[in-house]
Amino acid sequence: MSRGQAGAVNRLDLGIAAWHDALMAVSPLARPFPAMPPVAGVRIGTATAGYKAWTRADVTLVAFASGTTVAGVLTRSLCPSPEVDWCRATLPGGVARALMVNAGNSNAFTGSAGRDASRAQVEMVAATLGCAADQVFVASTGVIGVPLPQDKATGVVAVAHAALGTASLEDATHAIGTTDTFAKGAVAEAMVDGRRITVAGIVKGSGMIAPDMATMLGFIFTDAAVAAPLLQAMLTAASDASFNCITVDSDTSTSDTVLAFATGAAGNAVLTDAASPGADAFAAALTQVCRDLAQLVVRDGEGATKLITVEVEGADSDAAAKRVALSIANSPLVKTAIAGGDANWGRVVMAVGKAGERAERDRLSIRFGATTVARNGAVVPGYDEAPVAAHLTGDEVEIGVDLGLGDGRGRVWTCDLTHGYISINADYRS
Amino acid sequence: MSRGQAGAVNRLDLGIAAWHDALMAVSPLARPFPAMPPVAGVRIGTATAGYKAWTRADVTLVAFASGTTVAGVLTRSLCPSPEVDWCRATLPGGVARALMVNAGNSNAFTGSAGRDASRAQVEMVAATLGCAADQVFVASTGVIGVPLPQDKATGVVAVAHAALGTASLEDATHAIGTTDTFAKGAVAEAMVDGRRITVAGIVKGSGMIAPDMATMLGFIFTDAAVAAPLLQAMLTAASDASFNCITVDSDTSTSDTVLAFATGAAGNAVLTDAASPGADAFAAALTQVCRDLAQLVVRDGEGATKLITVEVEGADSDAAAKRVALSIANSPLVKTAIAGGDANWGRVVMAVGKAGERAERDRLSIRFGATTVARNGAVVPGYDEAPVAAHLTGDEVEIGVDLGLGDGRGRVWTCDLTHGYISINADYRS
Repeated sequence: MSRGQAGAVNRLDLGIAAWHDALMAVSPLARPFPAMPPVAGVRIGTATAGYKAWTRADVTLVAFASGTTVAGVLTRSLCPSPEVDWCRATLPGGVARALMVNAGNSNAFTGSAGRDASRAQVEMVAATLGCAADQVFVASTGVIGVPLPQDKATGVVAVAHAALGTASLEDATHAIGTTDTFAKGAVAEAMVDGRRITVAGIVKGSGMIAPDMATMLGFIFTDAAVAAPLLQAMLTAASDASFNCITVDSDTSTSDTVLAFATGAAGNAVLTDAASPGADAFAAALTQVCRDLAQLVVRDGEGATKLITVEVEGADSDAAAKRVALSIANSPLVKTAIAGGDANWGRVVMAVGKAGERAERDRLSIRFGATTVARNGAVVPGYDEAPVAAHLTGDEVEIGVDLGLGDGRGRVWTCDLTHGYISINADYRS
Repeated sequence: MSRGQAGAVNRLDLGIAAWHDALMAVSPLARPFPAMPPVAGVRIGTATAGYKAWTRADVTLVAFASGTTVAGVLTRSLCPSPEVDWCRATLPGGVARALMVNAGNSNAFTGSAGRDASRAQVEMVAATLGCAADQVFVASTGVIGVPLPQDKATGVVAVAHAALGTASLEDATHAIGTTDTFAKGAVAEAMVDGRRITVAGIVKGSGMIAPDMATMLGFIFTDAAVAAPLLQAMLTAASDASFNCITVDSDTSTSDTVLAFATGAAGNAVLTDAASPGADAFAAALTQVCRDLAQLVVRDGEGATKLITVEVEGADSDAAAKRVALSIANSPLVKTAIAGGDANWGRVVMAVGKAGERAERDRLSIRFGATTVARNGAVVPGYDEAPVAAHLTGDEVEIGVDLGLGDGRGRVWTCDLTHGYISINADYRS
């Protein structure tokens, strides 16, 4: 039974066990984990702290070669976790020797106890690896409001350290996951300074889902040598075209974190600015990995049965186009229409109208897939519904809007809104 | 079967007829239509234009006594209907002799054909009543993208005119409704200049719902004598504290319209400014009616089983408090948690964090009903869950947030997000 179909039932109708099976089934939009080579300069170990009542690995320690640079993009939530605060404070240093990820407890909204526990874990990792504390990056994901148990968080460090080099990136993907229904990874290669470099990324998250607040955590590892300021600029740009272009339910986690680590083990001349030879190729690979990871998160959206691409053109600016696209992608009415296979362009008009950007009804055109259904402010007379209906039965749907005003363009990915979303978020008690 | 319970099923499981019955059943949060006296200076006639395949009245003509003033609040959508454009252009005149409301066709996004049809109807009403066109106010609600059929829209005017004086406000409420599951009205009285004046309001809408795009239309009638500029100022203020404090699904119609008409038939000395004797009493009655109507719309939200009040205090400003309250009220995760009876304050923290207003985790407190569950950035140790659970089983839920920063306050009303919402918006094809 696919998760999408789970919407037709709830736990009043099923035994708890069957309901749970339906909920935890793999998303119908899942993709297989790609073949992913190890990244030189990156050693991974996983371990079980037991943050929840499970036996799976829930801690991931990654040790980096000396000279590894780091960049990051962090949640804009004004109530972030202490882990996010820590990364924000240490990122300007630009140097990383370790990454520690806890799954099962987000440590968010836990006051001074949570801050102390996270700091103690950082210190333990630094002491174990023999590096400075501000070279240790951390992220936690899971239940909110329960302080990270300090004894478990520090005690597990030695175990994970002993396991360094034994875990693959796919193992790490499983260890950082919470409510994900499939493991999500992406990889790309590029030629930089005569060397073949690898960019490998993993991500967890399926939108915000309770009780585990499925924060999005993304980690990208490359053997390229890239100066930290350039890596930061490239990651920011890549995120704006990927992680910041996806929305499942418009909700933003208190812990969203994307970190990129560049070990330099490939031996290329260090990329220092956009004009460095090979910088373009590296940026393209990084952007491709970010985009693939972002789409995988949408593909694991709660209850998702369709991946929706919203493309807006003809806006006053790219920023305006993106805001209009997000307004459409976040509209519950648009998302339920797509779930129902309904080419309801009226709801798209509504979402354009509420976006707060300039729009002129009489210049607006809307298409589903390749078929334009409304042009210059009115429905296309006698448009052929057959290809639209066929397009909407697929699991990838495209909504195109031309505002007819300027050259601004934007693209956003989301998923449909189904009974599955309600089942996961309303029927499940924390 | 209540509409809320309809969430447990969909039309795959039921015959279409049973599903339709469940969908159209009265909201479990419905309130009876109040006893509402006629308003002096207001004559109402309803008629059937047949905008849809039905026999019910779908046109409402209201004629006002000479000297009636008018004020209005219109959708901020940038793709409004021609009716909205017309009202926006004519409201500055401040004088009304007629209101014409069409139900079943919103005439939105219909280009020049829709504009022409609406204008022809206005001219017909003006000719029939013998008034200027810019003293005729119009509103249409229903399907988007299909031009108002001009022959029906103009032909029905004579019929409605002949019926003037035969319809009550409750009749009008039924005639302006589309997907509403119950008729919504509110009334208040006040003493102004020694006269007892009446403020009577009706509203239609249950959030945006397709295929009929359940626009919110609100009409308020009073026999008080109020100068148009003061009426406008009071209506704007009352709307900011009522219609602009409700959200069902964050979606905004292309046709939302609230109009207030003051006939002056009560014979009070005209209220001209806030210092006029009785102005305070009138404003209080107007605000009360607007608030009651706004809450009734939420009570008819698609699939709603609980009315949720979100109260935010301790913000930097009232505007900041309202933005935080709306962020909570629009969060699908908060709304599904309440649907599930889950006191999930972590989701409230998330919504506070994404609102974009200043928030300090360590000063934040959250309550459900009268029970504080988190204070100063951490869960209240051993808080008593029993009263919280009891509060969440009721059909009115209160979420309180104290940001602990300043004196700003705001209050917003919404409803829970249930399987019923999905059934109505995804399973139903236009």
